[in-house]
Amino acid sequence: MPALLHLDASPRPDGASRRVSAEFATAWRAAHPDGTYTHRDLAGDPVPHIDAAQIAVMDRLETAGTRDLGAASAAARSPQETASWALTWELVEEVLAADVIVAGVPMHNFSVPSAFKAWFDRILIPPLVVDLETGTGPLAGKQVVIATARGGAYGPGTPRRSYDFQEPYLRAALGMVALADDLTFLHTELTKSAHVPRLAGFRPQARASLEQALEDARRQARRVTV
Amino acid sequence: MPALLHLDASPRPDGASRRVSAEFATAWRAAHPDGTYTHRDLAGDPVPHIDAAQIAVMDRLETAGTRDLGAASAAARSPQETASWALTWELVEEVLAADVIVAGVPMHNFSVPSAFKAWFDRILIPPLVVDLETGTGPLAGKQVVIATARGGAYGPGTPRRSYDFQEPYLRAALGMVALADDLTFLHTELTKSAHVPRLAGFRPQARASLEQALEDARRQARRVTV
Repeated sequence: MPALLHLDASPRPDGASRRVSAEFATAWRAAHPDGTYTHRDLAGDPVPHIDAAQIAVMDRLETAGTRDLGAASAAARSPQETASWALTWELVEEVLAADVIVAGVPMHNFSVPSAFKAWFDRILIPPLVVDLETGTGPLAGKQVVIATARGGAYGPGTPRRSYDFQEPYLRAALGMVALADDLTFLHTELTKSAHVPRLAGFRPQARASLEQALEDARRQARRVTV
Repeated sequence: MPALLHLDASPRPDGASRRVSAEFATAWRAAHPDGTYTHRDLAGDPVPHIDAAQIAVMDRLETAGTRDLGAASAAARSPQETASWALTWELVEEVLAADVIVAGVPMHNFSVPSAFKAWFDRILIPPLVVDLETGTGPLAGKQVVIATARGGAYGPGTPRRSYDFQEPYLRAALGMVALADDLTFLHTELTKSAHVPRLAGFRPQARASLEQALEDARRQARRVTV
């Protein structure tokens, strides 16, 4: 029974990243009627930033070289650690349980929104990091789809290309925990053309970009998975 | 009367980024006994993520092309917008009032902590963005010092160089609001050597890196400012 984890990090209730991630989720659920589905709204229901308690647990896991997930789940000691680690572990289990992850992640100031980073900094615990010896980790093999929304255009050949600290960043960061082996980006660009008069001439390109992302989302969702 | 804004984003009470930013603040205050000083702990007292209400206000400012700060400060309409914008405006005024900004910003998963990004996404409002016509903005001319702490080494020639999404990112993002004209990074590296046995051999380099950052912090703080 395949499992989909659907994340959203846009503060815009009708943002393009939400529209595309929802399109993926709808098509995936139609194609997998027996599948399980979890939606987590990181903007509406934010995950607390990583705190001193989680850092203390993670430092101990790194010192001990603990890679066993059962041992890691029981690594908290003080009441503060236990509370913080329980919260983190709920997020970790959601990711472990998923076969497919789709995330709506707008670009905020050239990078990911703080609400997405808060989630990512929580779940990136030492036992999930790719093992230097084996070259793999417990999260390997999942299909990951990131639906972005960007005010401008950052594709190959655009003047803002080098300001994209979103896709290259996520490729590197997700790769740390083996989530970049089967990673697809669906970019909706030039969203600012909707409300910035100076950019109004780009509206047709923005619409085409969104349509393409929606179509690619449906295609990705219907992909035959192992 | 010069003004220093001191930010910290590390969840570690005794983290290296905090030690270096505090060293800067102490030396600066000694060198500027008549100066004003504000400390904001973004980890201990987090700024809420940017929300739909602030996005609505910012979209209107962008549509109207509003660059006047007085008009922008009064741009909220609904009760939700008024509450969110008041919170943002307090942060914006702190930045506007500062002549010098020092920020302790550890590297989390190759980039900035979510607690720092939450602050940055709040303060980056349209009237502060560099004007395309004049090439400058209201925040130009400030001295900005970023004290980082990094588990590994990311300097020139290191294998992890291309994984640094912290300094290159901050140069681009702070540049958007004219905060990169006089921007200095003080890196403390290899902090993981303190608790990861495999990296214990790097402890002397880690200590030297911290000592250098502390010395550079004192030097930067005593720099004669205009």
